Amino acid sequence: MAKGESKVFIDPWGAILIEDYIRVINQFGLEPFTDETLKKIPNPNRLMRRKIIFCHRDLNIILDAMKSKKPFYALTGIMPSAQKIHFGTKMVVENLKYFQDQGAITYLLVADLEAASTRGISLKESRKNALEFHIPAYIALGIDPEKTTFYFQSENKDVMRLMCILSNKVTESEFRAIYGSVSPGKVIAALLDVSDILFPQFRGKPMPGVIPVGIDQDPHIRLTRDLARKTKRVFGFVPPAAVYHKFTPSLDGSFKMSKSKPETYIELPEEPESISRKLWNAFTGGRETLEKQKRLGGVPEKCVIFEFFKQHLIEKDEELDKIYFECKSGALICGDCKHHAIELMSKFMSEFNRKLEKARDLIPSLNFIK
Amino acid sequence: MAKGESKVFIDPWGAILIEDYIRVINQFGLEPFTDETLKKIPNPNRLMRRKIIFCHRDLNIILDAMKSKKPFYALTGIMPSAQKIHFGTKMVVENLKYFQDQGAITYLLVADLEAASTRGISLKESRKNALEFHIPAYIALGIDPEKTTFYFQSENKDVMRLMCILSNKVTESEFRAIYGSVSPGKVIAALLDVSDILFPQFRGKPMPGVIPVGIDQDPHIRLTRDLARKTKRVFGFVPPAAVYHKFTPSLDGSFKMSKSKPETYIELPEEPESISRKLWNAFTGGRETLEKQKRLGGVPEKCVIFEFFKQHLIEKDEELDKIYFECKSGALICGDCKHHAIELMSKFMSEFNRKLEKARDLIPSLNFIK
Repeated sequence: MAKGESKVFIDPWGAILIEDYIRVINQFGLEPFTDETLKKIPNPNRLMRRKIIFCHRDLNIILDAMKSKKPFYALTGIMPSAQKIHFGTKMVVENLKYFQDQGAITYLLVADLEAASTRGISLKESRKNALEFHIPAYIALGIDPEKTTFYFQSENKDVMRLMCILSNKVTESEFRAIYGSVSPGKVIAALLDVSDILFPQFRGKPMPGVIPVGIDQDPHIRLTRDLARKTKRVFGFVPPAAVYHKFTPSLDGSFKMSKSKPETYIELPEEPESISRKLWNAFTGGRETLEKQKRLGGVPEKCVIFEFFKQHLIEKDEELDKIYFECKSGALICGDCKHHAIELMSKFMSEFNRKLEKARDLIPSLNFIK
Repeated sequence: MAKGESKVFIDPWGAILIEDYIRVINQFGLEPFTDETLKKIPNPNRLMRRKIIFCHRDLNIILDAMKSKKPFYALTGIMPSAQKIHFGTKMVVENLKYFQDQGAITYLLVADLEAASTRGISLKESRKNALEFHIPAYIALGIDPEKTTFYFQSENKDVMRLMCILSNKVTESEFRAIYGSVSPGKVIAALLDVSDILFPQFRGKPMPGVIPVGIDQDPHIRLTRDLARKTKRVFGFVPPAAVYHKFTPSLDGSFKMSKSKPETYIELPEEPESISRKLWNAFTGGRETLEKQKRLGGVPEKCVIFEFFKQHLIEKDEELDKIYFECKSGALICGDCKHHAIELMSKFMSEFNRKLEKARDLIPSLNFIK
C-alpha cells in the first residue's frame, strides 16, 4: 500500500467502499483485463468484449487449459435469500455460461448454510427459494442443466468438512485483514465459500478452476487462493482463477445499486410498469436543455441508460456504437433512448419469465450431488 | 464482576488461568455442589460423594427428570488427538456412566472436525485413534456400548448444519468475551461443541441434558446455554445442565497437569515402570523429617498421593478416611503411601488394559449414527 493511502476493505456482505476500480486493482494485486487479455480469449462474450470484466486473477491458467483441452471447472453459488436476483448476478451467470460453453466442468451450488449463517434464513426456506426460483432462473439465463452439477451446501458433507479443516489455517488477524472484522457468522460464511470453491478439487483431483464474480467478492477469492497455497502439500489444490465484472450502476447514477432504495435498481423478475417507471426516471448523460444537447451532444460515459445498453440490453457491438456516436453528435435525445431501453428491457423480462416457467419443469430431473 | 478484580478467561484449549475454584464459581455464576445438592442425588458416585464435582449448572432439571422418570440425555465428546487419555477424562467418563446408569439417553461422539480445526489432525487419523483406542477406552472405563449412541462429527450432517445456523446468533464481541480471542479455528471448534451438545434436541425433541466436564470446558457450556436461549423460539431447546469436576493435580503439586511436563502426570495407558517412577517422585504432604512427621502428622490436604487416592484409587470412603486420619496422626509415612498408590495404580492400569483389549472386539458391532 502506498504511503498515506487509507486501507480499503471490500465487504462481500454489504457496504461497498470501492471508489475506484483502478485503485482496487493496484491495492489487491489484481490483473487488469486488457486488449492483450481479450485477444487470447476464444469467442469472448459481450461482458469481455466491452471490458465489463475489468480484471482477473490467473485467467491464463484457464486459457491454457482451454487451449490444450485439459480439464478445468467453473463454479458459482446461489444465495437463496429471496425469489429475486439482480443484474449483477445475471452477469455472473453469463460468465459461468461462457466457461461452460468452452468446456468447463460446471458447478452450481445453493449456499443455504451461508444464507443461514449471514442472514438467519432457514434451510427449508432456502431450499424452497432455490428450487422454485434461483435454479430455474439460472437455467433461464443460459446455464445448461444437463452439463451442470448441482448441490446444496447443507447436503454436501465434503464442503462442511473442508470448512472445518481449513479453519485451522487462517489466523484471526489474517481473517481481519481480509474482511475487516471476525464475527462467527462471517467466519462460517467465508470458510463455506472457500470450501465450495475448492470442493471440486477436494472430492475430485487438483485442476484449474475459474470463479466469475463481482469485485465485491474478491475477499473470498483471496482467502481461497491463500488457503489453497497453504494446504497445497496436503491436498495439491491449484489456486483458483477469477474474473471480475464491474457493478451495474444504480439508476440514480450513483456507484452501485442499493437494496435500501428499490427505485434505483431493476430486479429479475420485475413488473412492466415498474420497469417503465424506473427507467424513465433514470439518470442520463443528457444536457440541461434540448438546445444544448443538440449543440454539444450527450455524455454516454456517465449515462445509466447507456450503461444498461452496454452491460445488458444490446448484444451487437455495431448497434451499441451507433447509439454512442448518435448521442455524442446530439442526434439522439434522452427520451428516445429511455423508450428504447424500456422496450428492450420489457422484451428481455418477458423472455426471461417465459424461460423461467419452462425451466421450472426441469427441476425434478436435475442431478443434485451429496 | 467486583470492582478491582481482573477478568478471568477460561481457555478450553490450553493455558489455564484459574487460581481459585471459589472465584470461578462466583465470577461465572456457577452453582456450588453442596451437601444439600448431594442429598438429592440418588446413589451418588465417588466423585460426587467427595465433592470432586464441586459445582454445576441447572443440575436440578436433571434430578427432576430422573425422579419423575422423564427422558433426559447425557453426552460427551472424544478428542481423538492421540491414543492416550488423562485422568481428567477418566472422571468425565465416570460421570457419564453415572448418568447412563440413572437412565440418561447417552451420546458419545468423536470430535474429529474439532481435532482438525484446533490441532490440524486429519479426519483419517482421528477415525483411527477413536476406533482403535478412545471408544474402547471409554467402554473399558464403564460406558455401556449397547446403551450408547455413537457418531463422528464429520459424518453427522445435522451437527455441521446446526453449527452454521447458530453462527449467526453470536457476535464477535460476545465470542471474545467468552473465549478471549476469535480465531477461525476456535470459532469452528466452539460452534461444533455447542452443536454436539444441542444435537440430541435438534434431531429429536427438546429435553433436558447434562454434560459432565472439567471446569476448563465451561466456556462451551456458557455459549451453548446462551445460544439455546437465543434460539428457543425456533428450536425450543432446553439449556443443558452441566456438572464440573476439579482437576487432577500435577504430580509436582502444582495446580493442573501440563502436557509439556510428562513426568508430572500419568496417562491411560501408562507402563508399570513409569507409574512407579512418577508416583515415587510425587509431591506429598509429608514433613521435612520422619521425626517431625511422626510428631506433627502429615498434611493430606496438600498431598498429591492422597488426592489420587481420593479422586481415583480408593472407592470405599471408610478406607480413604482411615488413610486420612492415620496420616494426620503421624502413623502413616509417605513411603508407605507411595507404595500403596503404586500398587493400586498398577492394578488399575492392568485391569484397564485388559478391559481395553476386550472392548476393542466390540467396535464392529457398535451403532454409529450419521
